[in-house]
Amino acid sequence: MKNSKENLYIIKVGGNIINNNTSLQSFLKDFAAIKGKKILVHGGGKKATEIGRKLGIKPNYKNGRRITDKKTIDLVTMVYGGLINKQIVAQLQALNCNAIGLTGADANIIPANKRPVEEVDYGFVGDIENKRLNAKSLKLFIENNLVTVFAALTHDQKGQMLNTNADTIASSLAISLSKAYEVRLIYCFEKKGILKNMEDDDSVVPLMNKEIYEQMLAADELFEGILPKLYNAFRAIDEGVDSVLIGHADDIIENTGEKISGTLIVA
Amino acid sequence: MKNSKENLYIIKVGGNIINNNTSLQSFLKDFAAIKGKKILVHGGGKKATEIGRKLGIKPNYKNGRRITDKKTIDLVTMVYGGLINKQIVAQLQALNCNAIGLTGADANIIPANKRPVEEVDYGFVGDIENKRLNAKSLKLFIENNLVTVFAALTHDQKGQMLNTNADTIASSLAISLSKAYEVRLIYCFEKKGILKNMEDDDSVVPLMNKEIYEQMLAADELFEGILPKLYNAFRAIDEGVDSVLIGHADDIIENTGEKISGTLIVA
Repeated sequence: MKNSKENLYIIKVGGNIINNNTSLQSFLKDFAAIKGKKILVHGGGKKATEIGRKLGIKPNYKNGRRITDKKTIDLVTMVYGGLINKQIVAQLQALNCNAIGLTGADANIIPANKRPVEEVDYGFVGDIENKRLNAKSLKLFIENNLVTVFAALTHDQKGQMLNTNADTIASSLAISLSKAYEVRLIYCFEKKGILKNMEDDDSVVPLMNKEIYEQMLAADELFEGILPKLYNAFRAIDEGVDSVLIGHADDIIENTGEKISGTLIVA
Repeated sequence: MKNSKENLYIIKVGGNIINNNTSLQSFLKDFAAIKGKKILVHGGGKKATEIGRKLGIKPNYKNGRRITDKKTIDLVTMVYGGLINKQIVAQLQALNCNAIGLTGADANIIPANKRPVEEVDYGFVGDIENKRLNAKSLKLFIENNLVTVFAALTHDQKGQMLNTNADTIASSLAISLSKAYEVRLIYCFEKKGILKNMEDDDSVVPLMNKEIYEQMLAADELFEGILPKLYNAFRAIDEGVDSVLIGHADDIIENTGEKISGTLIVA
């Protein structure tokens, strides 16, 4: 059965690639060149903070976590869902990649719930309703050779857009499509993978399982920014995604092949 | 043959409806209630000007026409393509209308060319390549009961988003789909139709043809804002769209039926 499924690459590109026009263009050129079915997920990088500052919207943190108030959800809806998403789509179209830019509200693909207020009120942050994720509409696009490009936004099905972590969106999409496709989920960013030593860009951990993860966590070798990726990577593997990689945006073509570069996540 | 085609309503909603939350919500409720296949096209209203002002982007006019410089195209891509489009989509989804928000760049539906520089350089303004308009992708969405919601944006197929009049987008979509569907194109706004007397909201001209148009134009009875709508309305009729109406946003359900309210455009 397994070998009869077609490959699908779900690629999440990190904020530092989005922030830099040269890196982004180089990445999009490679992404467009990937053969076969693919989906792109992007966050927003610094652009939302920059534009927010000009609009007088100050980033609001509680316990080190960003709070998405009303002004901020409107800001990220504009910047992620409008500016960045459509610029990526227009550039992919110029590269003959038939991109279509979406948020989770479009075609109700990613329904979510506003995170319940417990110790902290995170504001307009969406926790994905994974069981209701609309794989049917997604497959319609995929089977018609449309390359969906997702901004990190969902909705509450009551009329409100919600902010959702792009790493989580990528893993949720991967899980929901893993029954229909041989899915490879790739988190790509400005590092070559999970590094054993943050000071050494070449100290890539080639294979990551939960045992190694626990060891590195205990030894304080994992930097905080990588934790949501790892959490989502293990979740994807545990829920049936065929392969999950963390690697450099420059290695994206290589990483859609057999000889991978970066960190392979295994259960 | 004609009667065998299914109805398709293409509705363009005006900026003054978009500007007012109560009007917009009431309109979206009615739009969601329209039975059958439908497409929504929206402009941006004052929101882009408001946000632009806060960002220090001043509206730039030459010969009374707005110039879309680099900062302005990024602004309208954010505001029309992100904020307004996704807020409309989220609200329609809450009304059980399976909306999908798009620009002309998405799925390459509306290719355009940057307007050539002649007496005036209008900047990043797109003239639609009508013959290359991608009705095939649109039909895929329509036939799968997705309700496309278009922001007034196109792209140049070289990576650049372009600003395009929403009235023109609506008529171009209507023309390109008129072979496959019995298309009714409806321009709806805050007036009951074309008014004989701008001071009298009830002086609706029930029927408008080119002769009446020339007479009213000569008598200076048409206000400037209505001219692009009329130009596009006649273009649609001349190029095979089955019916074209100009009416009030409040009358939208009535205007998808037999007994219409507002101005009917005939050749």
